Amino acid sequence: MGSTGLNQRLVRAQSWVSQSVDKIDTPALVIDLDAMERNLAGMAAFAQAQGLRLRPHAKTHKSAELALLQMAQGAVGVCVQKVDEALVLSRNGVNDIFITNEVIDPVKLARLAHAVQLGDTRFAIAADSALGIERLIDALKAARANEVGAIDVFVEMDIGHGRCGVESPEQALRLAQLIQQNPTLRFAGLQAYHGAAQHLRSTAERDATMATSAARVQEAVNTLQGAGVTVPLITGAGTGSFVREAGGGLWGELQVGSYLFMDADYAANETDPDAPRFEHALFVKSQVMSRSTHHAVCDAGHKSHAIDSGLPRVAHPPGQRFSNGGDEHGVLHPIEANASPPPLGNAVWLIPGHCDPTVNLHEAYVGVRGGLLQGTVERIIAIDARGALA
Amino acid sequence: MGSTGLNQRLVRAQSWVSQSVDKIDTPALVIDLDAMERNLAGMAAFAQAQGLRLRPHAKTHKSAELALLQMAQGAVGVCVQKVDEALVLSRNGVNDIFITNEVIDPVKLARLAHAVQLGDTRFAIAADSALGIERLIDALKAARANEVGAIDVFVEMDIGHGRCGVESPEQALRLAQLIQQNPTLRFAGLQAYHGAAQHLRSTAERDATMATSAARVQEAVNTLQGAGVTVPLITGAGTGSFVREAGGGLWGELQVGSYLFMDADYAANETDPDAPRFEHALFVKSQVMSRSTHHAVCDAGHKSHAIDSGLPRVAHPPGQRFSNGGDEHGVLHPIEANASPPPLGNAVWLIPGHCDPTVNLHEAYVGVRGGLLQGTVERIIAIDARGALA
Repeated sequence: MGSTGLNQRLVRAQSWVSQSVDKIDTPALVIDLDAMERNLAGMAAFAQAQGLRLRPHAKTHKSAELALLQMAQGAVGVCVQKVDEALVLSRNGVNDIFITNEVIDPVKLARLAHAVQLGDTRFAIAADSALGIERLIDALKAARANEVGAIDVFVEMDIGHGRCGVESPEQALRLAQLIQQNPTLRFAGLQAYHGAAQHLRSTAERDATMATSAARVQEAVNTLQGAGVTVPLITGAGTGSFVREAGGGLWGELQVGSYLFMDADYAANETDPDAPRFEHALFVKSQVMSRSTHHAVCDAGHKSHAIDSGLPRVAHPPGQRFSNGGDEHGVLHPIEANASPPPLGNAVWLIPGHCDPTVNLHEAYVGVRGGLLQGTVERIIAIDARGALA
Repeated sequence: MGSTGLNQRLVRAQSWVSQSVDKIDTPALVIDLDAMERNLAGMAAFAQAQGLRLRPHAKTHKSAELALLQMAQGAVGVCVQKVDEALVLSRNGVNDIFITNEVIDPVKLARLAHAVQLGDTRFAIAADSALGIERLIDALKAARANEVGAIDVFVEMDIGHGRCGVESPEQALRLAQLIQQNPTLRFAGLQAYHGAAQHLRSTAERDATMATSAARVQEAVNTLQGAGVTVPLITGAGTGSFVREAGGGLWGELQVGSYLFMDADYAANETDPDAPRFEHALFVKSQVMSRSTHHAVCDAGHKSHAIDSGLPRVAHPPGQRFSNGGDEHGVLHPIEANASPPPLGNAVWLIPGHCDPTVNLHEAYVGVRGGLLQGTVERIIAIDARGALA
């Protein structure tokens, strides 16, 4: 492998520390640290007031530093989606990690088992098939990880999303019993997350959908308890739905992720009256590099921000609408008919449509204190698990 | 910065070399080397037969190894979109690079000027504003790069896309004259690329659009020549339109990129009768990690493939339709009503909707020889300029 320029880019980013935001080269992923800390505190206070465990989803930020910040404010640990994310965070000091996803591949399970065997980190994992559980047992035995102690396994239920998870209470019972039969594993409860519900716009739709989901969870709990299987914990919820999981008495742990940054998609949801107010804390700083009489072109496109949940919104300058300019460009049109596009060289601050896959496009966060427009770069925050896909 | 796991992942990928495709961990970005080499040869033969310069766009592959392969087969050099891409490729041995994009930021121009001053690589750049040209001159002087010799500057014209480029022949003339006034710069011709035309589905629409674009280019050439300014070269074209630029007698250089890999979006275009046949050569290998009676879930989502030009198509197994499963999942539904989803652990080969931003999500290509299903991993190819956004 030759030189990728990654180290040079990280050294460059470090040179902006203690400098004005004007020094930040574009495009760059910027955190408004003041706003992020208010989001962090708001969710921590909510979970504490409700008496719920908070286990934020690190798939959003992929950063050990931010995971440890969440844990310092009361989170019991974090969630991830992939084994490689878990390994990277564990190597960087995060010591309680739940892989909220199925892993079938023996190679990946061997990597996980090796990390379990090291004993530094408490790992948990989800399962929705007997094959997944059997292969996990085999991997733990092969790595002699079973000598370290049992690892937590949650049975994932499909509660309406139609993606992963068992389809019936009976299947959940069979898998819970399979887990209980093996002393290497501990049946930790049910993983019950409804991804699609997060993005239903009205509070009424989210209420109705999550009420149906809660009924399915209750039915599974009844089935398991009826067969003598205690359900220690139900874990799930996201930034769009968590007020419902928190209020129902079933869920004991919240896996919210996007609350830390917010994005244009979540901001388009009707606000829950009982939820803390979350602010936009994640931005792509871009700049105008071409300009006609009608529009300006900035240097951020699909390689700088994900568009699966829509195009970015323009936070600054005001009065500009973003339209798709392809992989490396964004086009800004003045919203008012007689207004002008911003001049060449001007900074353009974008609010990504969807924070998680946008974060995965960048190598580091630039943490800014004192606001986007007059602030100072406080620190560079590593996106440790960027590209940890497997 | 802590451990990102990147080195571990690259070492892991190297361990697959000389092994069966079955050993490739998922999700992974895989090149069918046989198909890619046929695409490479097909475009090289086309350009040679037409007597045109071929300067493939490295924004597609971001790889020095693939750039050098293109140059070994007759390409005069490559194009990039960003200064950081140019610097990474230059450091890895690519010695003729055209930045087909505007650069206004003095910090970026200083980096470029420093690389020009080293003298290893012939650089060219596009401009569409007097400010961009003046700042380029200042940066070259500050780095004493002007003592090395002139660098090529192309004036970019907007030929219908409505993004970058001057709007009139008179503007093109003014910028060409500004370039000619400074001995540090050489007026190299016109950058004339129509991005949106690449994705018009019918050959008739592409014919009509590019005919209008060619008329705009001809008008600019007439204006410049009428004022005594020779236009040494017109450069542009993409995989969707290049047969038209090649045939018109105006363009002398083709900047095609996606022909190397093809993707689902380009494959949806009506084929040009006069174009070489290009094959899908880029795939995401994924695997089934959850399965219900109705569908299977594979381990590739928005963090493994870009969806700006649509969802991936399923190359294998046959008979499955891909639907959106979010950032880390894809959902497979059997197309026939009484068919089954593929079993747990099975490999799933996806054809990305859009190759360029998909490549940018991965750290390396896995180069396979002998076909996707029974082939062998021949080599790992670095995606050197992945994440080179600035």
